[in-house]
Amino acid sequence: MVKTLILVRHGQSEWNEKNLFTGWVDVKLSPKGIEEAKNAGILLKESGLKPDILYTSRLSRAIQTANIALESADRLFLDVKRSWRLNERHYGDLQGKDKSEALNQFGPELFKTYRRSYDTPPPPIADDNQFSQFGDERYNNIDPNVLPKTESLKLVIDRLLPYWQDEISSQLLNNKTVLIVAHGNSLRGLYKHLTGVSAEEISEINIPTGIPLVFELDDDLKPIKDAYYLDPEAAAAGAAAVAAQGQKK
Amino acid sequence: MVKTLILVRHGQSEWNEKNLFTGWVDVKLSPKGIEEAKNAGILLKESGLKPDILYTSRLSRAIQTANIALESADRLFLDVKRSWRLNERHYGDLQGKDKSEALNQFGPELFKTYRRSYDTPPPPIADDNQFSQFGDERYNNIDPNVLPKTESLKLVIDRLLPYWQDEISSQLLNNKTVLIVAHGNSLRGLYKHLTGVSAEEISEINIPTGIPLVFELDDDLKPIKDAYYLDPEAAAAGAAAVAAQGQKK
Repeated sequence: MVKTLILVRHGQSEWNEKNLFTGWVDVKLSPKGIEEAKNAGILLKESGLKPDILYTSRLSRAIQTANIALESADRLFLDVKRSWRLNERHYGDLQGKDKSEALNQFGPELFKTYRRSYDTPPPPIADDNQFSQFGDERYNNIDPNVLPKTESLKLVIDRLLPYWQDEISSQLLNNKTVLIVAHGNSLRGLYKHLTGVSAEEISEINIPTGIPLVFELDDDLKPIKDAYYLDPEAAAAGAAAVAAQGQKK
Repeated sequence: MVKTLILVRHGQSEWNEKNLFTGWVDVKLSPKGIEEAKNAGILLKESGLKPDILYTSRLSRAIQTANIALESADRLFLDVKRSWRLNERHYGDLQGKDKSEALNQFGPELFKTYRRSYDTPPPPIADDNQFSQFGDERYNNIDPNVLPKTESLKLVIDRLLPYWQDEISSQLLNNKTVLIVAHGNSLRGLYKHLTGVSAEEISEINIPTGIPLVFELDDDLKPIKDAYYLDPEAAAAGAAAVAAQGQKK
């Protein structure tokens, strides 16, 4: 039996709008992000796909997106599970900085490496940095040695996979349709795991905000065909916009 | 150690506004209800109480209230669990009817009994009634023999208590602060269980919408003092309004 996995990247946040590195900083959706979330729910409803269970990160912008989308999809009643393992990539010392500030601090080469390299994380954030999550109660039941202070995309995948394997996979194997609402990099990490694309290839893949991306998986949880967006035209435009934003930086 | 339990009744729904019997019919919040939910979150935040876990019914109006309240309380990250056992009382054949329609159908004496009696449920709803939940996928993993087709307040308490005992109590005994967002009658049922008031007394107790009601419980989960509202003046006005609405009917 084909298993269905639906990925949604949260809508635009207040800091995306301001072009700041966000990572684990818990900012809310912008008005545009709220509209994107509503639209994601409408696309879901129109598709006829009926998620049975929702997974989110612990970050408000993903949770808001899920709440708004399920409201417009008329599926608020779903069971919900949240995990820090679905959080955005921790941007380390870049968190809270804007492009010019970070470029100035690290220089163009390191700056590019920190943004685009697969396995080189930025310098860790200091515990007393105002944008550190040190002491944040939402993570206080997690071993402090496990909690990241910076991450590369590779490290995101490393901490994401145990949750995928232990928790999300079991729902799919029980033929539940799973909806994950998370972040650009945690979803790219999952995309890489599912499709087997290389570290080079994944750096070119941009998941647009607010457009459900559907995987159909076999009994080994391998894709039986290419994943598809529920609104392919909007997805192509959105991915181009994300890529352009990256180049501007 | 004192355990804290916070109850919130959902804000005004589209059908409260129209004075229809709602029960398990899944209507959304009215604009006023959305404002009440926001206010509930602000009251929570100002109180300094920090719920660790959220319980809701499977009905959209309670889930919307919880989502909106936790957003304004800045606590969207909480773990969430939902159960049909926290649903509103099932109003049986009254569901979807307005006051005059029900009064006309049953006559004044039975009408009053169905609304106010502790243990006399209205006639069951027919499976082919448009306001029946027969076949609703959100309940399709529940034994059909357990799923109600009508309920008195007593029957609400009977189906609520297993969830209280097995699930919610264990969180409180682990010293988690628990938030329950549910309905007039499921919360009155829990109130009766916690306080031990009589069947006569509970018929006089009205829980206003959108104002958190706080219980402080001992190690036996008995109240150590009277439960209190986070906005006592608004609560008194709200309870009077609910009581007046009942008399109008």
